[in-house]
Amino acid sequence: MHARLLAHEVPGLALAGVYDVNAAAASRVAGELGTRAAGSAEELLGDPAVDAVAICTSTPTHVGLLVAAAEAGKAVFLEKPISLDLAEVDRGLAAADAAGIFLQIGFNRRFDPAHASVREAVAAGELGELHLLRITSRDPEPPPIAYVRASGGIFLDMTIHDFDMARFVAGSEPAEVYARGEVRIDPEIGAAGDLDTAVVVLRHEDGTLTTIDNSRRAVYGYDQRVEAFGAKGMAASENPLAHSGIRRSAVGTAAARLPFFYLERYTPSYLAEWAAFERALRAGEPPPVSGADGRAALVAGLAAWSSAREGRPVRVAEVA
Amino acid sequence: MHARLLAHEVPGLALAGVYDVNAAAASRVAGELGTRAAGSAEELLGDPAVDAVAICTSTPTHVGLLVAAAEAGKAVFLEKPISLDLAEVDRGLAAADAAGIFLQIGFNRRFDPAHASVREAVAAGELGELHLLRITSRDPEPPPIAYVRASGGIFLDMTIHDFDMARFVAGSEPAEVYARGEVRIDPEIGAAGDLDTAVVVLRHEDGTLTTIDNSRRAVYGYDQRVEAFGAKGMAASENPLAHSGIRRSAVGTAAARLPFFYLERYTPSYLAEWAAFERALRAGEPPPVSGADGRAALVAGLAAWSSAREGRPVRVAEVA
Amino acid sequence: MHARLLAHEVPGLALAGVYDVNAAAASRVAGELGTRAAGSAEELLGDPAVDAVAICTSTPTHVGLLVAAAEAGKAVFLEKPISLDLAEVDRGLAAADAAGIFLQIGFNRRFDPAHASVREAVAAGELGELHLLRITSRDPEPPPIAYVRASGGIFLDMTIHDFDMARFVAGSEPAEVYARGEVRIDPEIGAAGDLDTAVVVLRHEDGTLTTIDNSRRAVYGYDQRVEAFGAKGMAASENPLAHSGIRRSAVGTAAARLPFFYLERYTPSYLAEWAAFERALRAGEPPPVSGADGRAALVAGLAAWSSAREGRPVRVAEVA
Amino acid sequence: MHARLLAHEVPGLALAGVYDVNAAAASRVAGELGTRAAGSAEELLGDPAVDAVAICTSTPTHVGLLVAAAEAGKAVFLEKPISLDLAEVDRGLAAADAAGIFLQIGFNRRFDPAHASVREAVAAGELGELHLLRITSRDPEPPPIAYVRASGGIFLDMTIHDFDMARFVAGSEPAEVYARGEVRIDPEIGAAGDLDTAVVVLRHEDGTLTTIDNSRRAVYGYDQRVEAFGAKGMAASENPLAHSGIRRSAVGTAAARLPFFYLERYTPSYLAEWAAFERALRAGEPPPVSGADGRAALVAGLAAWSSAREGRPVRVAEVA
Repeated sequence: MHARLLAHEVPGLALAGVYDVNAAAASRVAGELGTRAAGSAEELLGDPAVDAVAICTSTPTHVGLLVAAAEAGKAVFLEKPISLDLAEVDRGLAAADAAGIFLQIGFNRRFDPAHASVREAVAAGELGELHLLRITSRDPEPPPIAYVRASGGIFLDMTIHDFDMARFVAGSEPAEVYARGEVRIDPEIGAAGDLDTAVVVLRHEDGTLTTIDNSRRAVYGYDQRVEAFGAKGMAASENPLAHSGIRRSAVGTAAARLPFFYLERYTPSYLAEWAAFERALRAGEPPPVSGADGRAALVAGLAAWSSAREGRPVRVAEVA
Repeated sequence: MHARLLAHEVPGLALAGVYDVNAAAASRVAGELGTRAAGSAEELLGDPAVDAVAICTSTPTHVGLLVAAAEAGKAVFLEKPISLDLAEVDRGLAAADAAGIFLQIGFNRRFDPAHASVREAVAAGELGELHLLRITSRDPEPPPIAYVRASGGIFLDMTIHDFDMARFVAGSEPAEVYARGEVRIDPEIGAAGDLDTAVVVLRHEDGTLTTIDNSRRAVYGYDQRVEAFGAKGMAASENPLAHSGIRRSAVGTAAARLPFFYLERYTPSYLAEWAAFERALRAGEPPPVSGADGRAALVAGLAAWSSAREGRPVRVAEVA
Repeated sequence: MHARLLAHEVPGLALAGVYDVNAAAASRVAGELGTRAAGSAEELLGDPAVDAVAICTSTPTHVGLLVAAAEAGKAVFLEKPISLDLAEVDRGLAAADAAGIFLQIGFNRRFDPAHASVREAVAAGELGELHLLRITSRDPEPPPIAYVRASGGIFLDMTIHDFDMARFVAGSEPAEVYARGEVRIDPEIGAAGDLDTAVVVLRHEDGTLTTIDNSRRAVYGYDQRVEAFGAKGMAASENPLAHSGIRRSAVGTAAARLPFFYLERYTPSYLAEWAAFERALRAGEPPPVSGADGRAALVAGLAAWSSAREGRPVRVAEVA
Repeated sequence: MHARLLAHEVPGLALAGVYDVNAAAASRVAGELGTRAAGSAEELLGDPAVDAVAICTSTPTHVGLLVAAAEAGKAVFLEKPISLDLAEVDRGLAAADAAGIFLQIGFNRRFDPAHASVREAVAAGELGELHLLRITSRDPEPPPIAYVRASGGIFLDMTIHDFDMARFVAGSEPAEVYARGEVRIDPEIGAAGDLDTAVVVLRHEDGTLTTIDNSRRAVYGYDQRVEAFGAKGMAASENPLAHSGIRRSAVGTAAARLPFFYLERYTPSYLAEWAAFERALRAGEPPPVSGADGRAALVAGLAAWSSAREGRPVRVAEVA
């Protein structure tokens, strides 16, 4: 998906090549997009014509590639989470820092126009002092169980987007995390040591409270909402519908369902994310989503796991 | 309904008594509301303690009662239409004028907060110069065929509310009327010489165009919408739903149906209508809906019938 | 408000009289509604023509009046909370039980058609197994500080409605309560030992999770929403708007605000509550909201206070 | 826009080359899309590797190119209107017919999922017998006056989409057209012999009535709605908003504006149009929008101009 966007849809960026451990997949994508399939990641990192790399591989490979890209002096776009291991995260960020490279983390939801409008309302002071955030984030169906096992669990794989959203909208760091989860959807998820249904309460440093709820299976579609409530009013991103047709009969009104999943809902946000990458990189400005942002969301996720396991609110300082 | 509102819900007005040609009905209502059932309309008109009368009888009796009330010097609330006969209307209005009484016509929809918000947007200049109005007005089910026969037909019974709405929102008189109707719902309505499905195009004196559509049977509920479109924007009254509950599943979103009919939709507008009556009468101000308003809507309806019968646009001046 | 509804709006119930410690207030209401102002509560309880009493006095007087009404064999409608003291609640319920009287607690929100539609979707199995509830309940403005001081605090005064809603919709008892609150709106509320902004997480006995958020000041109106999410779909009660008018311009779309407070939003639910009272009492059926319901919501509130004070999730069994 | 979609977004179709009378424009587009800029239309029509051509040139060139493409045996996608001259239309359709080529007319709105859902509701019988259609179609701003002069006027340039929509949704031909227009937006449009604000009433052969309203300047965005009303219910395509963010304050609710124009609203419909072209062409099925569809919409437009000029309803048979 990222390759396709980069090849055709982002003015100012061109696709120099693709690499995948699955060489056949890389060849196919390269063929479709009219670019080359590199024989190794190193080949791309060593190519002086390459200005930037997008690291969208499996999580355990992130930090190694980040360090290599930093050493090669490339700008980096890195998918979340940076790593499931905080020491590894710090190693990667230190390398990026030392090399002075541009590093942007892939929290695409910040670029969704509806979510962004909530942040803008807060940042512009339209809501006054912020009191409460409510974030809903429910996937239409669980990933394969093998993915679940390697994912770091719901709080590092799924809620991590919501931790980022909470930080982004509130503009204040989470100080305390209370998490409560259940296995309601698939016992196999439980057997893998994970949860599939969860709620989280954050207390931010400035006293703002955030509630998050997650589910691995919302059969009615991809439910993604953020709501901010403050002294002067509220702002919210509601769910778009698949289309705007309706029907009315004697028994009621029928409208379309939600978008099925992230491709239906968030493709414009991926595009905007890349446009922001290009703009900031070219202008020499800091990345719109920094490595520190990636780290902070992970820390909140680790605190959530501690809380869920120990049955008590956990201060972020205990984890970070 | 009016009696009940007057008895309990309108501060500043008290119910002095009721009269109905059906004495049993009058007795029952009087008993329920703790007031007297008068033996005749004259008894109420002759009572010096009565300040105002609400004439909500069948249309053919309107003008006679209006003239009697005018002679008795009572303030009058008169349900629409004043009469189906323009000469009768003029006789009634002349009597009211001669007596100098306060006369308000029952176009309650002006007092619906959503429709009123459209008028306010126009009046405040928020839409700039007005270009177009769209009015939808569909009943959930036809009245009894006996009622249809005496009603003056769809344009005088049903569209008359929309003609008033067009005048009210546009603030400009209709100059030309084109009406096209069909019998799609009940052949008996056609046999009675009436139509059950109709569209009307008005050209107002200032060049604004209005479209109206009507149906005698909208099985999904009472569909009542007004939309105004101008140089700077648009305003609309959308349909409220019966309640704000929704359900989402894999196949779509379900919401409530429309309000069934006028009692479910317009009771607050009847209350506001009475409050406006009381306020204007007490303050010595002109009535919020005048006898001339009642006459103008009738004239538009008569022009619509001419248009539908002759298959051509008809200038209002041909009728008035 | 209750007296006015009973006097005019509830077929099958008639207002036999009113009593208030403030005799002038009682006289005024009695005059307006055409009923008598009793000299004492005992006068009404001793009147054999009185079948039922509505106890809508200040909370500390509830149990005493309930016991007296039980001894007099009257059916009772009792406003929530029964008492702030669990032993007192049990004393009142025991008296009601011993006398075998009909006792209904005033959780009116169960009768709101939108909230009720959420419960119906759950009860009908349309959502499948329930996983999550989200309840928002925000008042437009705080009560006077004197009221706050006597109210039992936010969890017993305000969240108690949401505890009832969670039990009502989920059909499963809360087993564990985590509550986190802040003083963000008015330091005087904090000085009174109360909170003005709070979130609560419930774990029900069946594993369902509920989040609740409350605020004492939502300047944009009375924000009241319930959302239930299960294996087959979701149901929600969204906020109605004050009216259905909209405006569109080049900068956006404007719609009406929320209803201001409970009178604007919940008057139909109060009416439905009384109709259900009348229906159940006449049919000899159990009350739609029982004394046990009133007790259970109080217990959840007491657990919430323990949780907020001790900074840990509290099992309901610790309190009850 | 079409070239870009064809180059990257339509599986099963590849862009073989582009031609434009403006050679520089063609070269630029060809360069961007990695295809060749042909030296003439004939070059593309003569290339045996080319299976199909998209004729998106100015209207007066349509029929000549259609005839040439037919003689070359190419499948054709032709933008609306086929021609402003009915004899020319018939010449083009005869050539296409004689050559037996696949010919699809560019009424993209049929492929908008919301409008399509209205048609589906009608076609599936969900609305019962159809009674009324309401179509709103308002552009955000007028085209340049030079374009207006060559456009055939509002009814052939703009309303032609709505005539097609009326035929598509109703499944019944217009039999009579009444059109009323005004110049409210720009006197230059009037000086060019055109109108900028118009309403149209259609009576279809089966008795269904359609109202259409058009404006050349809806400052609040691209207003595109279709509503169908029948014996069993109604279906409508409402306007999508630019995004789903909202804000609430004490004065009201604010939401996003409408999409600005057709690119923001209808890009998915263009894609679906091309997918339908590819699917039908490959399957040997008739085109989803035929040459006869293109002709019928033009005929309705010509009847609308007669009606507007003569001030009377015009039977389509008078024009066709």
